[in-house]
Amino acid sequence: MEFKKAFTQLLHEVREQKPLVHHITNYVTVNDCANVVLALGGSPVMADDKNEVEEMVAIASALVINIGTLNSRTIESMILAGRQANKLGIPVILDPVGIGATQLRTKTAQEIIQEVKISVLRGNMSEVKVLSGLAAKTRGVDSGDDLQGGREIAINLAQKLNCTVAVTGAKDIISDGIKTAFIENGHPMLAKVTGTGCMATSLVGTYCGVTKDYFLAAVAGIMTMGLAGEKAYQALRGQDGIGTFKEKLFDYIFNLSPDEMMEGAKLDVQ
Amino acid sequence: MEFKKAFTQLLHEVREQKPLVHHITNYVTVNDCANVVLALGGSPVMADDKNEVEEMVAIASALVINIGTLNSRTIESMILAGRQANKLGIPVILDPVGIGATQLRTKTAQEIIQEVKISVLRGNMSEVKVLSGLAAKTRGVDSGDDLQGGREIAINLAQKLNCTVAVTGAKDIISDGIKTAFIENGHPMLAKVTGTGCMATSLVGTYCGVTKDYFLAAVAGIMTMGLAGEKAYQALRGQDGIGTFKEKLFDYIFNLSPDEMMEGAKLDVQ
Amino acid sequence: MEFKKAFTQLLHEVREQKPLVHHITNYVTVNDCANVVLALGGSPVMADDKNEVEEMVAIASALVINIGTLNSRTIESMILAGRQANKLGIPVILDPVGIGATQLRTKTAQEIIQEVKISVLRGNMSEVKVLSGLAAKTRGVDSGDDLQGGREIAINLAQKLNCTVAVTGAKDIISDGIKTAFIENGHPMLAKVTGTGCMATSLVGTYCGVTKDYFLAAVAGIMTMGLAGEKAYQALRGQDGIGTFKEKLFDYIFNLSPDEMMEGAKLDVQ
Repeated sequence: MEFKKAFTQLLHEVREQKPLVHHITNYVTVNDCANVVLALGGSPVMADDKNEVEEMVAIASALVINIGTLNSRTIESMILAGRQANKLGIPVILDPVGIGATQLRTKTAQEIIQEVKISVLRGNMSEVKVLSGLAAKTRGVDSGDDLQGGREIAINLAQKLNCTVAVTGAKDIISDGIKTAFIENGHPMLAKVTGTGCMATSLVGTYCGVTKDYFLAAVAGIMTMGLAGEKAYQALRGQDGIGTFKEKLFDYIFNLSPDEMMEGAKLDVQ
Repeated sequence: MEFKKAFTQLLHEVREQKPLVHHITNYVTVNDCANVVLALGGSPVMADDKNEVEEMVAIASALVINIGTLNSRTIESMILAGRQANKLGIPVILDPVGIGATQLRTKTAQEIIQEVKISVLRGNMSEVKVLSGLAAKTRGVDSGDDLQGGREIAINLAQKLNCTVAVTGAKDIISDGIKTAFIENGHPMLAKVTGTGCMATSLVGTYCGVTKDYFLAAVAGIMTMGLAGEKAYQALRGQDGIGTFKEKLFDYIFNLSPDEMMEGAKLDVQ
Repeated sequence: MEFKKAFTQLLHEVREQKPLVHHITNYVTVNDCANVVLALGGSPVMADDKNEVEEMVAIASALVINIGTLNSRTIESMILAGRQANKLGIPVILDPVGIGATQLRTKTAQEIIQEVKISVLRGNMSEVKVLSGLAAKTRGVDSGDDLQGGREIAINLAQKLNCTVAVTGAKDIISDGIKTAFIENGHPMLAKVTGTGCMATSLVGTYCGVTKDYFLAAVAGIMTMGLAGEKAYQALRGQDGIGTFKEKLFDYIFNLSPDEMMEGAKLDVQ
């Protein structure tokens, strides 16, 4: 109950403070990431040129790094912006999209976590396993289904990186190395729309912009996406499909009330 | 009344001539910019490689330059395309997204207005202030609220750059240095969807593709976006939010009738 | 009837196998391409850095190359990925967006078809004419209306490139150089939404991921888009426009049933 109250307070703060969330992200889902930040109450800015990212992150409240369509130009910017964020005490949220699918992605994500102190890492189980040094061959950006031992993996990686690790899937696992949260919100249809993982990361980033409790922010962000998925699915009628579902995700997050967060949360923190 | 009639004529011409509008723009809102041009009746084309932009702009009726996610590669293309447009008498519409947030943006926008004759400049008040040399620290791509002295700022910048300046906000101010138009169309929800500023710029560009009266085109473009915002908001029901609102923006512009433009305009030209 | 049965089988296979479709594509319509692959039942992945495309395509079932916003960096990646796909027997689907509008596009598309064995080429008549060496000046990415002699052009190019050529327009023409299919599905409103051509190409790519009969896959992909256009249009009400229409395209493809494919097909194979 205490946790749920904290979330509703966090939601209130986002809407009051409108945190600026700087993204260096992929061009596939960038528009949806911007709109999900706005829907929650934050303010997104996307900038990836090495000649401006340090200045841009300096006026932001959080930095989201997403390697979905990384290239040599943007990788350099990610490191520069990440280091600057660290210097200024601005939280960095990393989404290692598709890590394991190619060496470039694995190497880049590893380089980022070596050079930059991450506040929250958000990925699916395959991606998190790769970063944990466990054998896992990801298949593009698909979600892995294997949640066996997920809790342990999340805890270990959180301790190793000294950050919060959020593993999303049918059941989400979020750990800061000490506390671990399990979230059962969400709907399988979320996996049928591109970018719902990226959007969850951006929501986490937005919440991180108003608190120093990044574990709380991660849980709030993942839960918000899950609740949106449930509500959007419930609103579907007749021949509605992923087009309508996606639209309703934004509607729901825009209208999300503290009461809904309190009542809808299927959360277990251990 | 005369002005309103001119707009309906302009709308008619767009749908007749289907002007090709070349964009060098950001990857955040590019899809929405393309669709808004199509919705109005134009034809969008996006191309940003330095080896093709001069050829592409040569077959276009207008060039939109938007620095939202500028980088060294695209900055060069913006200048090349802009100069070529000038040579051929093709109008150039500039959206200096986020200028003031970083030196790169400020420097780039200044370089563009030095190297390229702009027909219409569209920005929010913070952005326009920076270009005017007035102290203004923009916060990413947010809209500034300070409209104090806005008219004077718009007039002065329009005279300095010898172009039309469109300052969008709660109340829009558009000046060519002689005439100034005030538009009260629009809805606050427009600020809750990413890219509505970029889309307004693309609408201005589309109208510019069918007339040499760029002041008229700028007023028509800004008004079209404002009317769409009003209508889209009116159409919302129950739990609708920014997802539905955004979809309805496109619906409305697609269905925009001359009569609605005549009747809906909240326009004062001085 | 035999053909129609084969399509419903193909649709079934896509949903069973969830083929991974690697895209090197433009940043204008990339999100829609990803969602249309997901809607059909496939799994999209977008990656364009030269240091990872060969690895990425190696785990994919099909490669879609779309030159919509090509640049020197991505052109190199297209060739690398295409050659690797050829080596591994993975089908390559090419969308030569806007070829003829600039020399860079024409040269690049020609280079790709010289260096890479294409399985399916999808374009409008203007684009196909340019590749055929026939005089055709395309106007950005517009659809050409001239279908005169379209069949012959498609057959000749298919024979020349030893691939399937899909020419989309008011009436679609698809030929593998021997068989030619004519499809009358579709709706004019498809031309009013950006990216419906790109999306059709991505659908073709998704079907190619589950069969070696690329002619069949091309017909199925084009027909799926056409059927979606018809159904989406039928679902429009009152003031609905391209915003709602686009959303419903995804809904329809997501819900597409084998029966609808059987009954809705306006197909003639000669």
